[in-house]
Order: sequence, then C-alpha cells, then structure tokens
Amino acid sequence: MNEFSVRSKVWLEYNGHPFLGDGRYRLLCAVNQIGSINAAARELGISYRKAWSQLQAMEASAPFPLLERRIGGKDGGATLLTAAALELLQGFRQLREQVNVDADNCFAQIFPVKE
Amino acid sequence: MNEFSVRSKVWLEYNGHPFLGDGRYRLLCAVNQIGSINAAARELGISYRKAWSQLQAMEASAPFPLLERRIGGKDGGATLLTAAALELLQGFRQLREQVNVDADNCFAQIFPVKE
Repeated sequence: MNEFSVRSKVWLEYNGHPFLGDGRYRLLCAVNQIGSINAAARELGISYRKAWSQLQAMEASAPFPLLERRIGGKDGGATLLTAAALELLQGFRQLREQVNVDADNCFAQIFPVKE
Repeated sequence: MNEFSVRSKVWLEYNGHPFLGDGRYRLLCAVNQIGSINAAARELGISYRKAWSQLQAMEASAPFPLLERRIGGKDGGATLLTAAALELLQGFRQLREQVNVDADNCFAQIFPVKE
C-alpha cells in the first residue's frame, strides 16, 4: 500500500511580496466575525500587537482599504472588513481549495498506488 | 493593473509525517550529483550534522532504502541514491511543477485582471 500523500500550501503576493497566507487569512476572518482586532487576537492566541502589526502591514501594501471602523452603537463600534477585502478572502479560500484538489489529482497520477 | 500573484509549495508526507519538501529534495539531489554527504552539505551551506540527520530521518521512515554506498575506486567510494529514491525525486519534481502551473491557472480564473 502506498502511504505517501501530498500536502500543499498557497499564498498570495502583492508586487512580489508575501501578502496573504493561511495565518493572515485566519486573522482577517476572525476580525470580521468578531468585529474587534483585540478579541480576534485573543481568539487566535496571538498578541494584540502581533495582530495589529500584521493588519497594518497588509493595509500599507494593499491596493485598497481592508478594514473599516464602524463607530457607535451600544458596543462602541466595530472593526469590519471592506467588501474588497471580503472578496479577496473568498478568492483566496477558493484558490486554496482548488489547488489542494489539483495537488491530490496530480499526486494520484504521478504516484499511482502499486497493486 | 492586477499585481497580485500566487505562490505555492508542496511536500510529500509518509504515513502522515512530513517526508520530502524543497529542502530535502535539494539535499538528495546534491548528494546524488556530488556523491558525498559532506560535500553536498558544504554545497548547500548547511552543516554535515544537519545533512546527515535529515538523511537519517528519511532513511528511518522511508519504505525503501534511499542511499547506497559505493565502496572503493580512486576517490574512496561514493554515496549515491537508489533507483527508488531517484524515482521519488523525479515524481516530486513533476508534482511541484504541475501544482505550480495549476495554481497559476486557478489564480487567473479566480482573480481575473480587471481592465
């Protein structure tokens, strides 16, 4: 039995620099779900400082705004993702899933199970 | 202009543990080309100890021998790869290239250039 398997990882670069991989993807999703950078960082077990600096780095290099601050309400406002950022996350998720499927298919062709 | 691009990485696992990625691929190729673990480590800028321990780890978990020691000759023998190891490397290279191409194609579909 062939016990080899393939794993794959994708990330997006912007102008040749790493921009969005699994870690930042999780961070952006958490911020959007929870509405707070602080609570998202806690949820992911990283420091606020780290979360904030990753978001800052992305905001600084992205060609469009990623975060929007909604002010007011009983909870004192929330940090959410812009429509463009949500579209980017959706594209990344789709890309990652498709590349995983393709990698499995390639693997099955190149390393057929030997009977 | 859309300046996003995709990068991808693949690795093989054996029985669920990381087995062969880019670093070990380079090491095995260098050993086979040069015929010596010591010289291959120097070529790659890693310590002999690191090269040796990586090769040991692979040998210990692989379902077939990876290295063979050819004894004698004027240079005092050489360490080469077995036919099964060479086949594995070739499969890995092919897999990596194909997954890269597939990732580029997926990316182009999911993130079309906006005119």
